[in-house]
Amino acid sequence: MGEPVLIVGSMALDSVKTPHGQARDVLGGAATYASVAASLFASPIRVVGVVGRDFPQEHLDFLASRGIDLTGVEKANGQTFRWSGAYGDDPNEAKTLDTQLNVFADFNPVLPESYRESPYVLLANIDPALQRKVLDQIRAPRLVIADTMNYWIENRRDDLVKTLSRVSMVILNDAEARSLTGERNLTVAARAIRAMGPRWALIKKGEHGAMLFGEDLTVSVPGFPLERVKDPTGAGDSFAGGFIGTLAAEGKTGERELRRALAVGAVVASFNIEEFSLERLRTLRRGDVDQRLHELRRIAHLGEGN
Amino acid sequence: MGEPVLIVGSMALDSVKTPHGQARDVLGGAATYASVAASLFASPIRVVGVVGRDFPQEHLDFLASRGIDLTGVEKANGQTFRWSGAYGDDPNEAKTLDTQLNVFADFNPVLPESYRESPYVLLANIDPALQRKVLDQIRAPRLVIADTMNYWIENRRDDLVKTLSRVSMVILNDAEARSLTGERNLTVAARAIRAMGPRWALIKKGEHGAMLFGEDLTVSVPGFPLERVKDPTGAGDSFAGGFIGTLAAEGKTGERELRRALAVGAVVASFNIEEFSLERLRTLRRGDVDQRLHELRRIAHLGEGN
Repeated sequence: MGEPVLIVGSMALDSVKTPHGQARDVLGGAATYASVAASLFASPIRVVGVVGRDFPQEHLDFLASRGIDLTGVEKANGQTFRWSGAYGDDPNEAKTLDTQLNVFADFNPVLPESYRESPYVLLANIDPALQRKVLDQIRAPRLVIADTMNYWIENRRDDLVKTLSRVSMVILNDAEARSLTGERNLTVAARAIRAMGPRWALIKKGEHGAMLFGEDLTVSVPGFPLERVKDPTGAGDSFAGGFIGTLAAEGKTGERELRRALAVGAVVASFNIEEFSLERLRTLRRGDVDQRLHELRRIAHLGEGN
Repeated sequence: MGEPVLIVGSMALDSVKTPHGQARDVLGGAATYASVAASLFASPIRVVGVVGRDFPQEHLDFLASRGIDLTGVEKANGQTFRWSGAYGDDPNEAKTLDTQLNVFADFNPVLPESYRESPYVLLANIDPALQRKVLDQIRAPRLVIADTMNYWIENRRDDLVKTLSRVSMVILNDAEARSLTGERNLTVAARAIRAMGPRWALIKKGEHGAMLFGEDLTVSVPGFPLERVKDPTGAGDSFAGGFIGTLAAEGKTGERELRRALAVGAVVASFNIEEFSLERLRTLRRGDVDQRLHELRRIAHLGEGN
């Protein structure tokens, strides 16, 4: 199924509380969500991450069962990265209750030789200096997507800008795009971000969907309307995974493929937030995605003719 | 051009300050924006409103020059309704500096006999009791759209709910939809609103566009991406005017027409906010609308096939 995808990022055990329930020490992490989402579309998916001795073998077995290559996942002495958070009525606002970096604090992404020719690369949200370190180990990637977060924008801006000059696309949310550029208007912010290097800027807007900005290309995808968001954790990562997985499956990044990947990303994210942790992604099938993709296109359809 | 449209609402002189400049005592008011927008598509447009003795004749001449029927516009003794407001960096947030209702305080919409058979009716944001009074004077309308605002939701809720039970569609923004229903999720809020009577709920989301909810119909239109919003005043009213004008021009409210009207509304609103007051609407042509409509459809296009 297409071209190899390399995904680098966190693997975690999450504890989450939302208005619809709670979950303790469940499978989480950006690389986890993204790789499972991508595995619906493309193969092989290669993961670089680190877990502790306490990371349940069943989670690794699950990932392997999805055809995800775990050669690059280090099992370090110590505890797995743990994140604990809560959401109120607004699914866009996570309140972090506790972060224990544990083995993730010393994360040093080293790519197995078998990973070094990976044409599609997703650098999930990690220290921008580490993101560049990954790029140093890859031979001629065709598409490099970097995610980031406010922490790096505020505390490692220069480092982040250096990384951005080396990637094809950056994914961030609207608040982060504004913070990075000092521009409130997202179209202006996207232009400023693209001037830093990335050919494309993908700006996520939570329930309002996402926008992709490139030269002569602007695409807007609505959020798929859900009546209930059970757990928003991993929405952005499953979006990114579905997005890059779709592109890798096609083996192309033309306008047609980008539009489709954006819609698939929104659809996969919408499924993900229907259940805690990766529960919904575990049972999700291509047929489910295709059906909701059809519905989303109907929702976005603005009629024909003048 | 299609079926007659009746528009009832405020006519005003506005003073507005934005990061891009200011304007004093310029033409404004919900009925004004909506009727000029609607006049691009349909005819006749019939307005019911009230102005004071100070209302410049040139404004009435301008409206008449657009084929707008002013038989229902009363020229009352006193001063015209004046609104003064300011916008900061966020174009979605108007700060009202001063409101002088003047002759609008005693607005008592009386329909000329020639207006009573108007199949398309837009009740702009006025006291919901007055909105019902208008409905009492109309014979068998085919589509009645009511706009409203937080003030009525908070202070005249029972009255508003009574009005909603008699209209085909309500237009409100996301904050108002949440306030009216107590539901944060817009899909749930739209269902609750439709349970109050309206067949359709149209929820505006500022820069994020708008969503139309009906039975077996959900449509999302993105906001047209602008790099500069010069004056957000009248965005919602020009949206509503473009929307109902498009439906009246088609003489139908089928799914196809509703999708198209939603896109046209977003396009007209995007033009309107490019200049102060109605300056952009004055020179706007159908060809401009058609071109941007084409662009908006490209932006919303999510590719084909699985």
